[in-house]
Amino acid sequence: MPIITLTTDFGLKDHYVGVMKGVILGVAPAATVVDITHGIEPQNLHQAAVVLANAATYFPAGTIHVVVVDPGVGTDRRVLLAEAGGHLILMPDNGVLTRLAAVSPPERVTAVMAARFFRPRVSATFHGRDIFAPVAAHLANGLSPGELGPTVDDWVRLEWPEPCGEAGRIEGLVLYADRFGNLITTIDAETAAALGDGARATVAGRTCSLVRTYADAPPGEVVALVGSSDLVEISVVQGSALDALAAGPGTPVTLR
Amino acid sequence: MPIITLTTDFGLKDHYVGVMKGVILGVAPAATVVDITHGIEPQNLHQAAVVLANAATYFPAGTIHVVVVDPGVGTDRRVLLAEAGGHLILMPDNGVLTRLAAVSPPERVTAVMAARFFRPRVSATFHGRDIFAPVAAHLANGLSPGELGPTVDDWVRLEWPEPCGEAGRIEGLVLYADRFGNLITTIDAETAAALGDGARATVAGRTCSLVRTYADAPPGEVVALVGSSDLVEISVVQGSALDALAAGPGTPVTLR
Amino acid sequence: MPIITLTTDFGLKDHYVGVMKGVILGVAPAATVVDITHGIEPQNLHQAAVVLANAATYFPAGTIHVVVVDPGVGTDRRVLLAEAGGHLILMPDNGVLTRLAAVSPPERVTAVMAARFFRPRVSATFHGRDIFAPVAAHLANGLSPGELGPTVDDWVRLEWPEPCGEAGRIEGLVLYADRFGNLITTIDAETAAALGDGARATVAGRTCSLVRTYADAPPGEVVALVGSSDLVEISVVQGSALDALAAGPGTPVTLR
Repeated sequence: MPIITLTTDFGLKDHYVGVMKGVILGVAPAATVVDITHGIEPQNLHQAAVVLANAATYFPAGTIHVVVVDPGVGTDRRVLLAEAGGHLILMPDNGVLTRLAAVSPPERVTAVMAARFFRPRVSATFHGRDIFAPVAAHLANGLSPGELGPTVDDWVRLEWPEPCGEAGRIEGLVLYADRFGNLITTIDAETAAALGDGARATVAGRTCSLVRTYADAPPGEVVALVGSSDLVEISVVQGSALDALAAGPGTPVTLR
Repeated sequence: MPIITLTTDFGLKDHYVGVMKGVILGVAPAATVVDITHGIEPQNLHQAAVVLANAATYFPAGTIHVVVVDPGVGTDRRVLLAEAGGHLILMPDNGVLTRLAAVSPPERVTAVMAARFFRPRVSATFHGRDIFAPVAAHLANGLSPGELGPTVDDWVRLEWPEPCGEAGRIEGLVLYADRFGNLITTIDAETAAALGDGARATVAGRTCSLVRTYADAPPGEVVALVGSSDLVEISVVQGSALDALAAGPGTPVTLR
Repeated sequence: MPIITLTTDFGLKDHYVGVMKGVILGVAPAATVVDITHGIEPQNLHQAAVVLANAATYFPAGTIHVVVVDPGVGTDRRVLLAEAGGHLILMPDNGVLTRLAAVSPPERVTAVMAARFFRPRVSATFHGRDIFAPVAAHLANGLSPGELGPTVDDWVRLEWPEPCGEAGRIEGLVLYADRFGNLITTIDAETAAALGDGARATVAGRTCSLVRTYADAPPGEVVALVGSSDLVEISVVQGSALDALAAGPGTPVTLR
């Protein structure tokens, strides 16, 4: 029985996530449901796209990833099922696939239209419960994607702030801060590696070294390093770069 | 093996929820444990009652719902097991059943007194671990409710702020704000529908239209709509009504 | 199949916890993974040690407890596996075992060195994903601890603020505040019991009675009582001692 993962902006104070799991287990009692996170900022599609790309491929092949960050709920935005690299991704058609698709282009994207797999009464505001949960559970039970609707090619891509630059100088920006106050940037490991040894990062007026690991600097020091998402992060060793620097999502970062 | 759900005010920073799961799995190793939420405000019985009513019926028949919002822990308040609509609800006798009982009256309520199903040593402050968890697990293993104690009828009901009004005008109030800043009110869908088309809501000096879905208004606009709990909610499209309006739990809402 | 528990300072807003579960389930598909908490304050080893000691023994024998509070990630600090009282504890060598070891001394501690049980590529910053998760999953699959590396005796112990005092007077301090604002102290139940009936606690200039349960005082009153961790706690009945008193972690507490 495949795993079903959940990535939403529902938070944990309400009953929304629990109810989705109740609906899933009603259709697929043996399913294993795993939370990626419910802490996406409300309606933040870029953050959802990063989280999906960072998490999906660490799950076994066949996993069904459900993403419900859905500012368009109640409009005529489509629901999509993507097949990519052995994983299934069920989501609104709003671009949350953008980052994962960059590293693992989908072999097929299906518009989910077969209402016989939805809950009998679909609300105007909670498709997580009424569409995404039951469809994911039917997929876990072996439903073939082709039964859900037609193949589509015109799915939404988010504009993405790619790092740019000239010889020896890369310009990027801060994507978001994680729980530890690490500032995750748009600059990927490969681009950073091209600068060779001795690279330095500048953010919010502070310049720091690009190190290999936290152990390369004393506690309290600002450093840049390639983090676990293969992106350059600005960190304070055993501290919080978010608290220490006047920087946050959108702040420019230069690597040279 | 039935599902066991957990609804508490324990939060997630401590070990309390994890310990309850450890005790459950020690008694019923094959149980599936699902969190509804642990984010009930400390000792907020009305919020717990709403969450239970919104969540319980989306789980399969036979599910055991455990509610531990328990300001009376250590007093002689009773522990109850209710059977309602194919579900079991295990809870302190403090009114958290009130809202679910309004839509699904319990067929039987049992006072849980058989200490042989508790942990051998019951603390004065953590009955979630010492009573609720092991009893729920024994129920999952097939224990009959009748073995827990006598049937009772005098279980506690919470006073509930029912919407009231005259022809064409309904007075209610805000119950709570959810994660998105939607203000969930006491006015139910059926009562609202009786007003017919063109109804308008007034809250905190702002008047807005009762729409069917978020798509009926542009981003940033205040709207009223029937939400996924079948209650009227005051929302800001792609924003937070809690942040935008001078309103919160207890604020009067008029629909006309 | 044994249970795997997770105790980390990762929080819940990022994908880190979900990714650990994906890696575990990739290696041990039938494992049951239970969160103790991911709300340890970043790099707070004392808090992690208390949580582990409070939680571990409530799980069935054979449970694999994974603790990833790891300020030394990327340095040459060791990864350890302890066997204690029928439980396995997988953790960095930084003292998080200290409190559990005080009540349940480990029979064996192994230095985890067999990289063939790690993920093929080990990052410099996320050993939870690359080392702890796969090793825990292999242990759940039946891997013998002896295959992971040599036995060691020189594992790190944290300095611990033990309560002290003379006849009829015990000096301790506040360890941390829980979700309800209860102030958990270093004074254990046995030490407190030696004072006999009528003991009183003083903290932040306030003196209160040591009661047996919350029911022994009216709502709003400050009390001391032995909590569910068998430690003296300073509480406000149906309120928050953290909010009501000028006290927090490190504040001295006297019992007499």
